[in-house]
Amino acid sequence: MTSQPPATPPGAPASPLGTAHPAGVRGAVRAVPAYPFTPTQVPTKLDQNESAYDFPAHLKAEAAARMLSRPWNRYPDLHAEGVAARVAALEGWDPAGVVLTPGSNLLIKLLTELAGIGQTVLTVSPTFSVYTLEAQMLGARLVSVPLNADFSLPVEGLKAALREHPPGVLYVTQPHAPTGHADTEAAVREVVEAAGDDWVVVIDEAYHQYSGTDYRALVREGAGRLSLRTFSKAWGLAGARIGYALTSPDLATQLRKLVPAFNLGVPTSSVLEVALENPGYVQERAAEVVRERERVFAALAHHPSWQLLPSRSNFYLIRTPDAGAAYRHLLAHGIVVRRQDSLPMLEGCLRVAVGTPAENDALIAAAQAFGEG
Amino acid sequence: MTSQPPATPPGAPASPLGTAHPAGVRGAVRAVPAYPFTPTQVPTKLDQNESAYDFPAHLKAEAAARMLSRPWNRYPDLHAEGVAARVAALEGWDPAGVVLTPGSNLLIKLLTELAGIGQTVLTVSPTFSVYTLEAQMLGARLVSVPLNADFSLPVEGLKAALREHPPGVLYVTQPHAPTGHADTEAAVREVVEAAGDDWVVVIDEAYHQYSGTDYRALVREGAGRLSLRTFSKAWGLAGARIGYALTSPDLATQLRKLVPAFNLGVPTSSVLEVALENPGYVQERAAEVVRERERVFAALAHHPSWQLLPSRSNFYLIRTPDAGAAYRHLLAHGIVVRRQDSLPMLEGCLRVAVGTPAENDALIAAAQAFGEG
Repeated sequence: MTSQPPATPPGAPASPLGTAHPAGVRGAVRAVPAYPFTPTQVPTKLDQNESAYDFPAHLKAEAAARMLSRPWNRYPDLHAEGVAARVAALEGWDPAGVVLTPGSNLLIKLLTELAGIGQTVLTVSPTFSVYTLEAQMLGARLVSVPLNADFSLPVEGLKAALREHPPGVLYVTQPHAPTGHADTEAAVREVVEAAGDDWVVVIDEAYHQYSGTDYRALVREGAGRLSLRTFSKAWGLAGARIGYALTSPDLATQLRKLVPAFNLGVPTSSVLEVALENPGYVQERAAEVVRERERVFAALAHHPSWQLLPSRSNFYLIRTPDAGAAYRHLLAHGIVVRRQDSLPMLEGCLRVAVGTPAENDALIAAAQAFGEG
Repeated sequence: MTSQPPATPPGAPASPLGTAHPAGVRGAVRAVPAYPFTPTQVPTKLDQNESAYDFPAHLKAEAAARMLSRPWNRYPDLHAEGVAARVAALEGWDPAGVVLTPGSNLLIKLLTELAGIGQTVLTVSPTFSVYTLEAQMLGARLVSVPLNADFSLPVEGLKAALREHPPGVLYVTQPHAPTGHADTEAAVREVVEAAGDDWVVVIDEAYHQYSGTDYRALVREGAGRLSLRTFSKAWGLAGARIGYALTSPDLATQLRKLVPAFNLGVPTSSVLEVALENPGYVQERAAEVVRERERVFAALAHHPSWQLLPSRSNFYLIRTPDAGAAYRHLLAHGIVVRRQDSLPMLEGCLRVAVGTPAENDALIAAAQAFGEG
């Protein structure tokens, strides 16, 4: 377990790093790097774990028509109550426990504000960078427990950390990112229950449609538990920016205080409404992603030097002898993936999204060409 | 000057208020009330300082066509670089100093994160509630200096506060909300310069098109200064949720670390692009708002018991002997306004947006009927 105190104690003056003007900028913000992403324009984009397919064209047209029928000069609902009720209906959830934001990244920030500042943020390592960057910038003590060697949840390590540190936010990602590993429900339950009633427990289910896992029942058992979900992956709406939380009305009441008022715009809500009225495509596409992922794994099972690591998500890791060389090779074949080799336990690893069949064919061919090179 | 320490010291355990489950929720969040807004459905909506006119219909159609031509399954720009460059061109600003978010409320939160947590947030009283709520929830020391009796900036009081408190965020709102008062440029400059290079100085110019004031030149003179602007008012796009900051590249670099990645969606950016290509309507409408405001003031100048307070914005305060009675009277006439009578210095006050000529006629008639009642 590693534990990093806040880069600057919240009440202390700006750190020496903060001597650049204006000195008022907190040292904890200056100390972190910018979000690690550089856009690359190539034909085959497998670097952001997006859906390979656009939101269906007839639904796009319907969403556009709907937003045109509404005024744009008026503020939308204070807390997107209208669409929150529809999300609640789809998810079988109490509308009072649904919180929507323009992207779940913002919810992670708000959860850090809710229970992380001056307290603890507990996660595993490697993990989704937004959890750790927000913790570091906002002044939480960041505690990271290494995953087990097979990428499973370090149950005993997390239980020890829950005992040793004062409460805050615990992140459990199912299926995990960036590994794609899905844990047993028993393991997840053991960790969540160990957090008791003191922690805000976030089960990030961004990719749950691919793994077939679903922790709503576990979340419902405790007022401090929350499932974090998104329309950016299986719903094919990364461009619309919509994330949401399913939690208890009590926790939602506190969290909503931190949600910027009127934060889901009319165009966005119109898109969301149409998606919620037409959810049929989501599971079909998720099933295709799983079939395609298995096809890629079968095709590359005997690659001479690249090893595909098991995944339950819409992306997978490839362990290579030299991630830089492999990345550049794919790029030369018009394919962009994400390097993950600087993360703990992920030496040599690239993260690759499942694409369309043609994109996956391109990836397979390029990988095989590398093997021959 | 009043100074409120953080409701809970950032490093301290949750306050007694935090004993409800989960205990991990910070006491500072529990301690603040929810954002004070209750929607009311009536014919004449003058309670949110919106533009009375929708974004022009042909531009709505153009925005819809543009978003339909783009994929929705792909993440948008990391930091809305495409539209930021267009905002920069319109404003005559370095694109590296433009930061966009889905609504300027979010920027206020991010500024509090940048330089408020564990530090100071300095504003006047009364002021925009988002400044103070974010400061209180995120653990800043909130320092509020009362406005002068004529609602002008308390220059000496602010200068004293700047000397007495360690740096953080200073908000100067021009024209001010909720009073509508615009200060002299000399007064604003004196306060901003007193903050020196240590503070992050935010000049909130949400309503600047109505007052004709413009603090870009003053902002450009210091790396820690920032103009906060919005498409929600004069641009008639409150429903689209777009706010932005004009600041130095240095400050923008730090602020962008706190902006959620990919935070401006494709539908939103499409709307913004079309607005930026067709800005002509904005000044025309702002001029009409000013004419209409003056017409309402003239019509009600001799009201027996209501006093309209001078404004340079698209809203104005009416001081009444009994705000509750006045509010209910207007509501009975199908007009909703915002009560402000619980704010310091605003006893008896309602805040009223300038509407369409017909809406303003309705307001005038209802006000006159009250006088006769």
